[in-house]
Amino acid sequence: MAERAVPARPAASPRRRRGFGFGAPGTSPGTLRDDVGGVARVVLKTYDDAGITTVEGPTPALCEAARAKGAKTWIDIAGRPDAALLRVLGDAFHLHSLALEDVQRPGAQRPKAESYGRTLFVVLNDVERRPDGRLEIEQVSLFLGDDFVVSVHDAEGEDPFEPVRRRLDSDANPMRKRGSDYLFYALVDVVVDRKFPFLEDFGDRLEMLETEMLADATRDSVVHIQEARRALHVLRRAIWPERDVVNALVRDDDPLIGAETRIFLRDCYDHAAQIIEILETYRETASSLMDIYVSSISNRLNDIMRVLTVIATIFMPLSFIASVYGMNFEHMPELKWYWAYPAIWVVFVAVAGAMLVWFRRRRFL
Amino acid sequence: MAERAVPARPAASPRRRRGFGFGAPGTSPGTLRDDVGGVARVVLKTYDDAGITTVEGPTPALCEAARAKGAKTWIDIAGRPDAALLRVLGDAFHLHSLALEDVQRPGAQRPKAESYGRTLFVVLNDVERRPDGRLEIEQVSLFLGDDFVVSVHDAEGEDPFEPVRRRLDSDANPMRKRGSDYLFYALVDVVVDRKFPFLEDFGDRLEMLETEMLADATRDSVVHIQEARRALHVLRRAIWPERDVVNALVRDDDPLIGAETRIFLRDCYDHAAQIIEILETYRETASSLMDIYVSSISNRLNDIMRVLTVIATIFMPLSFIASVYGMNFEHMPELKWYWAYPAIWVVFVAVAGAMLVWFRRRRFL
Amino acid sequence: MAERAVPARPAASPRRRRGFGFGAPGTSPGTLRDDVGGVARVVLKTYDDAGITTVEGPTPALCEAARAKGAKTWIDIAGRPDAALLRVLGDAFHLHSLALEDVQRPGAQRPKAESYGRTLFVVLNDVERRPDGRLEIEQVSLFLGDDFVVSVHDAEGEDPFEPVRRRLDSDANPMRKRGSDYLFYALVDVVVDRKFPFLEDFGDRLEMLETEMLADATRDSVVHIQEARRALHVLRRAIWPERDVVNALVRDDDPLIGAETRIFLRDCYDHAAQIIEILETYRETASSLMDIYVSSISNRLNDIMRVLTVIATIFMPLSFIASVYGMNFEHMPELKWYWAYPAIWVVFVAVAGAMLVWFRRRRFL
Amino acid sequence: MAERAVPARPAASPRRRRGFGFGAPGTSPGTLRDDVGGVARVVLKTYDDAGITTVEGPTPALCEAARAKGAKTWIDIAGRPDAALLRVLGDAFHLHSLALEDVQRPGAQRPKAESYGRTLFVVLNDVERRPDGRLEIEQVSLFLGDDFVVSVHDAEGEDPFEPVRRRLDSDANPMRKRGSDYLFYALVDVVVDRKFPFLEDFGDRLEMLETEMLADATRDSVVHIQEARRALHVLRRAIWPERDVVNALVRDDDPLIGAETRIFLRDCYDHAAQIIEILETYRETASSLMDIYVSSISNRLNDIMRVLTVIATIFMPLSFIASVYGMNFEHMPELKWYWAYPAIWVVFVAVAGAMLVWFRRRRFL
Amino acid sequence: MAERAVPARPAASPRRRRGFGFGAPGTSPGTLRDDVGGVARVVLKTYDDAGITTVEGPTPALCEAARAKGAKTWIDIAGRPDAALLRVLGDAFHLHSLALEDVQRPGAQRPKAESYGRTLFVVLNDVERRPDGRLEIEQVSLFLGDDFVVSVHDAEGEDPFEPVRRRLDSDANPMRKRGSDYLFYALVDVVVDRKFPFLEDFGDRLEMLETEMLADATRDSVVHIQEARRALHVLRRAIWPERDVVNALVRDDDPLIGAETRIFLRDCYDHAAQIIEILETYRETASSLMDIYVSSISNRLNDIMRVLTVIATIFMPLSFIASVYGMNFEHMPELKWYWAYPAIWVVFVAVAGAMLVWFRRRRFL
Repeated sequence: MAERAVPARPAASPRRRRGFGFGAPGTSPGTLRDDVGGVARVVLKTYDDAGITTVEGPTPALCEAARAKGAKTWIDIAGRPDAALLRVLGDAFHLHSLALEDVQRPGAQRPKAESYGRTLFVVLNDVERRPDGRLEIEQVSLFLGDDFVVSVHDAEGEDPFEPVRRRLDSDANPMRKRGSDYLFYALVDVVVDRKFPFLEDFGDRLEMLETEMLADATRDSVVHIQEARRALHVLRRAIWPERDVVNALVRDDDPLIGAETRIFLRDCYDHAAQIIEILETYRETASSLMDIYVSSISNRLNDIMRVLTVIATIFMPLSFIASVYGMNFEHMPELKWYWAYPAIWVVFVAVAGAMLVWFRRRRFL
Repeated sequence: MAERAVPARPAASPRRRRGFGFGAPGTSPGTLRDDVGGVARVVLKTYDDAGITTVEGPTPALCEAARAKGAKTWIDIAGRPDAALLRVLGDAFHLHSLALEDVQRPGAQRPKAESYGRTLFVVLNDVERRPDGRLEIEQVSLFLGDDFVVSVHDAEGEDPFEPVRRRLDSDANPMRKRGSDYLFYALVDVVVDRKFPFLEDFGDRLEMLETEMLADATRDSVVHIQEARRALHVLRRAIWPERDVVNALVRDDDPLIGAETRIFLRDCYDHAAQIIEILETYRETASSLMDIYVSSISNRLNDIMRVLTVIATIFMPLSFIASVYGMNFEHMPELKWYWAYPAIWVVFVAVAGAMLVWFRRRRFL
Repeated sequence: MAERAVPARPAASPRRRRGFGFGAPGTSPGTLRDDVGGVARVVLKTYDDAGITTVEGPTPALCEAARAKGAKTWIDIAGRPDAALLRVLGDAFHLHSLALEDVQRPGAQRPKAESYGRTLFVVLNDVERRPDGRLEIEQVSLFLGDDFVVSVHDAEGEDPFEPVRRRLDSDANPMRKRGSDYLFYALVDVVVDRKFPFLEDFGDRLEMLETEMLADATRDSVVHIQEARRALHVLRRAIWPERDVVNALVRDDDPLIGAETRIFLRDCYDHAAQIIEILETYRETASSLMDIYVSSISNRLNDIMRVLTVIATIFMPLSFIASVYGMNFEHMPELKWYWAYPAIWVVFVAVAGAMLVWFRRRRFL
Repeated sequence: MAERAVPARPAASPRRRRGFGFGAPGTSPGTLRDDVGGVARVVLKTYDDAGITTVEGPTPALCEAARAKGAKTWIDIAGRPDAALLRVLGDAFHLHSLALEDVQRPGAQRPKAESYGRTLFVVLNDVERRPDGRLEIEQVSLFLGDDFVVSVHDAEGEDPFEPVRRRLDSDANPMRKRGSDYLFYALVDVVVDRKFPFLEDFGDRLEMLETEMLADATRDSVVHIQEARRALHVLRRAIWPERDVVNALVRDDDPLIGAETRIFLRDCYDHAAQIIEILETYRETASSLMDIYVSSISNRLNDIMRVLTVIATIFMPLSFIASVYGMNFEHMPELKWYWAYPAIWVVFVAVAGAMLVWFRRRRFL
Repeated sequence: MAERAVPARPAASPRRRRGFGFGAPGTSPGTLRDDVGGVARVVLKTYDDAGITTVEGPTPALCEAARAKGAKTWIDIAGRPDAALLRVLGDAFHLHSLALEDVQRPGAQRPKAESYGRTLFVVLNDVERRPDGRLEIEQVSLFLGDDFVVSVHDAEGEDPFEPVRRRLDSDANPMRKRGSDYLFYALVDVVVDRKFPFLEDFGDRLEMLETEMLADATRDSVVHIQEARRALHVLRRAIWPERDVVNALVRDDDPLIGAETRIFLRDCYDHAAQIIEILETYRETASSLMDIYVSSISNRLNDIMRVLTVIATIFMPLSFIASVYGMNFEHMPELKWYWAYPAIWVVFVAVAGAMLVWFRRRRFL
């Protein structure tokens, strides 16, 4: 459920990114796979104005019971659920089989919002940098019903929903008084906002790359630039549709989302729009890095050629003069002059000096 | 019915691609050609909740009978049907003559969805890599009526509809219970999804090209890049409109497609959108390959010039010094010193060494 | 009425292209010019289910009579009609003076569809390569009324409407049974479809250019590329709006065009869309030609520099060694050794050989 | 009221272009400035079917009287009107203060069409090349009421409205019979159409630049290209919105413009669209000029390096051979051979000849 | 609350720009922070037709009283308000908590217009160059109610609202007679118009950069170009959405804004559109600067190589000739000729002269 994008270091092979996660072409849609699994944790919370109950690792029966009880329910699954769990949830909360198949699919998907009448299904992408430096793009799936939310996220790395869980557990927070749609908004909001610290970090790396490029571009620089560009492209692909998803939540008049929550989602939309603008800024930066790199190669060539030209231009005339007096003509009067040899050294120094002065005037040195 | 696109190997001449497949300008529209043919196989399936009957190579009479019988019908044609067969089908199922002409047209067409009132006509493109390495883009034509589907696809290569046929033949699968629109969806879905393994393979080739470019760009690299770009362009042209076709199927309220099938088509649309995003990623990769190539040529020039400069800068001063002592002046005191010759070798080594140190400091070496 | 675009050969001056064909700014709109003329042929056809009458070079009176008679009428004009003829037609068929002015205007115009209530006026561009190699873009003007079509096209070159005339003359063809809108569609269709063979030819030339570029780019190549790009730009400008024109005919609910004819126009729209996609492909090809050209210049520079570097790197050390033994020091023991001279040749060969090996290892050779 | 854009010659500083002509931020909107003035000529024409009266330099009272009289009125102002005149006009014709402020603003503005209920206000840009070679972009302001037109244009250079004035004065022209909206159309039309001869001239200059670039690019060429690009950008900025302005006049159902005049404006829209396409063509040409320039610099470098390589490659081996026989070994048998010296010249010529042949084979010469 | 963008001087690190100003992901929306503060000045103005009262640093009670009094109210806050003040204002004027949170957020935000039913909330960006040369992008927040305006802007630098305050204080100005929406328009207008002088200054710097690039591009030039491009990108990001904000104010039928004020806002929209066009022009200029820079590097390389080629091509043949007569063959008749040495000098001069003539012909000199 993770997609690698490692800027400023040999990129994870894009091949792994493509394991597009679809079954063989032609298999029945909505097929759940029994060989998939690895749920790390399931947390069931039922809450209303009066209070909140939390059950870790609830039995399927409990999930179904929660559904029946009348209180608002939040089932949060960390990890990739197996077919059995999904079937129980699907039956209890009337989740569409295509949505359940999407939950199980490995690898990051395109963010989307699908309305199945009584439930709303949203896929978002969470971005995280793992302790070992890898960037991971992890799918977050959210179901919203009239009085429940089901969320599925990756088990590795930081739990994105921890702050929301704390707010819901706190008696002071008005969250419990509001409907399931507000909890749903809070979950969407945290996934969107988690991009800000991430992008700040990414921006720092880009800046280091620019400094490297201006100061001391090496042959590896082009690799680094390409990696940054590819990482940015992966990020764009993962993040860009999120803005449209949040916009659809704001605009579509889905009765599951109340008018007041819609105002909050509008705020969330502003953040998503800002994230995309930051990404675009980074993209321009990355593309101007290539310009800088190319001009730095050219500048270096100019340097090399200048050294060659200066050396050749000084020593070629000198060598010529020395060769002249190495000729074996019998009648070369200079050869016999007593001061000829010191004089020739004066000539050597004068020619070299004149050249140097000329070079400095033409700014070759 | 095949379009070649061979990346990473001399491309099939684009000329063959253009044989646009249209008759001479000014011929009557909807003209069926009798000189065209080569149907490899016709399979007629009639099915309902109760069971399924399969007839290979049915007579025209059987096709017409199937139409009359009340059960759901699927006629699948592998190869390019001749005018006689098309006329029979057109009469039995009320297919429009323009659509029938499109079925006969050789070469890949632009994917499209046309509604002719009682039937829906869809053209898609199937992409396949043949055993000999050629990429083929093959037209798939689908007709949907209230209780029938007619499909026409290429006879060469793998049969794209084999998995669907197996699902329909299996008693366990709910496909037979659903209407013809669901079969139609299944056929569209398989054509769309077959692009995923293909693109995975194409991505691997692009990656190899990038590795080649970074490690060891040769003169042929520019040819390889151009071939990849052209293949991508051909793919984009063949695949891009498919997303719009599937979208039209989802959005247009054609009564031939039921509400439930529309949900499945929405899923299929997501896949089509993802395919286009993958293609765009590849396009960016291919275009950055050219950047890498150009910078690699420049780097190589820098290398060559550095070698020249180092050699020239070391040996020009040395040669000059040697020339000086090859001069024939009578009064050159050094020439008579006993240790002069060893001393000059010390000078030679010192000058060369100083140059090398200086080069290393300026990172020329 | 002709616009030149000559790829792969010195382009006709774009100046001639601009003679935008408008009167002096500020002249009255709808002014017909008497100094214009040169009608090569006028053909009047009146037809209905029963039969067809053809009159070449009809009198104005005949034109007006045709209008009155009740049968369907097609007046086809080859060449540029003078003011007198246009006035007769305008009066008989209620054609708008602005449309008539457009018919007279020399040079290719922007394709457009204008509805003047009782008549529909369409301007298209026909593209043709003349026997002498020039590309010509020629305006085709079509008027559609409830029971007449008036068409005006260029007299030079091939008559684009010949195939339609043959179909109309043939008793077997159902064209006569259909309304004037179908004839109108047939004329639009032939103008659109005539681009296919033309583009096929253009594509062949582009391909030759690409082969030239990869094999043996000369200084003229940049001229050829520029010519191809300019020709493509001219073609795009002439052809691009045609798709919108045909689309407008399909979408706008003009009562002059029947529902069935609209289906045929939809087919024609598909062709127009395909033509634009082909043009876009060519445009990408032409723009990648410049990339190939630039990289080929760079490669050639690399070649030149490699030769220089190899020669200099081999002979500079050799010359230095020779200079050393040309020094005139009195105490140079080697000079007196008997085998010194042959030995120095061994050194020469060894140094040169070592260099060559090193060059081959670094792939300079 | 003039904006300079001088292609193919040191461009007028863009600074002068920016004197954006706005008052200090925060001043009251609609403030008329008394320090502005310089009206060269005011012409008042009142006309109806019966006849036309022309008054040059009418008194304010006359303007107001004209308004009252019932006939159609055209007040044409050449130059920049002062606050007093504008206030009189504003009161007599109910012109909005914001529009009057726009009329007074110096420098070219963005073309726009503003409806103030009872009047329509349009700003267009007139482009002219002055006798001294400068390009001027001058604002043209037009007010349309139910029975009046007020026009304001620049006093310098050619009077753009002269041809319209002549048409209105001529008894033969049907202009007087039509409403004020037709006069308004005629004024818009002449401003739009005046771009054609201008662009024709600009295209000639671009063509000369291209010829220069292909034949003999100098260091100044890059300056010329930049000037042409900047001039084009200025033109685009001035002209591009005009199409939208004319389109708004056609589409918006402003009751001030009659249905018949709308047909004429549609014709005018076609011209505006064509002008933009011509500008786009020029833009592509200008951008390909830079490509040609860059490839011409590279070609020149190749030339230089080829000369160097040929010279070095011929003389380095020759010099080496000469150095060999300048060595002072005692035992060099060749030195004593009688024919050695002529033989060595044969070697010199043979080596040089072989090199030249090899160069010609590799196309270095 | 300041964003740096310093063209033509080492740019402020983009890192500071990103301190995106959002709280930790997952915190409650609408949370006001008590640790934020620094209000420099609060000015309360209540006005109606009769007169105006100004209170500097009003107590919260006064603010609430103002609200109750019936007159129109403007509360202007310079600096970043703390939670207490915001809560008072929020309660008195029914401001939404999300909007209040936005007011407190540090760093420039995306301009936006949000309608919360009874209030309209607008965020704009003010751009200013500080005396020390830094560019600052500062957030301006505006609330509009039926009879009040609350404005919050940065305390540093010039007060953008000073001119509006003066107009409101002046008895002559009609501002007090109009509604709060007109005051609101005046504040929006001044923020938009303040970009004009700023952009004029920025344009001057770009022009200086272009002059530098054409005359004497150094290695630092690429840094300067990158800084200008980045500053432009920052400006675009800050300014671009303002046009849409003003457009939304014009188009959305918010009852808080009257029809007459809408006309003024339309004028303001024209200015915003013009600002964006100026920015686009600058962007094109900045991107063509890179073209000029690259071509100037190439030209310089050509210069260097020309010097090398001229020197090498003159001295290599001369050195060869000198070496020839340094050979030690016994039988070299020339060596004994009396005039040989002067003659060889004649040869030297002739060869060098011929070379120079040839160079001048090929324009190498």
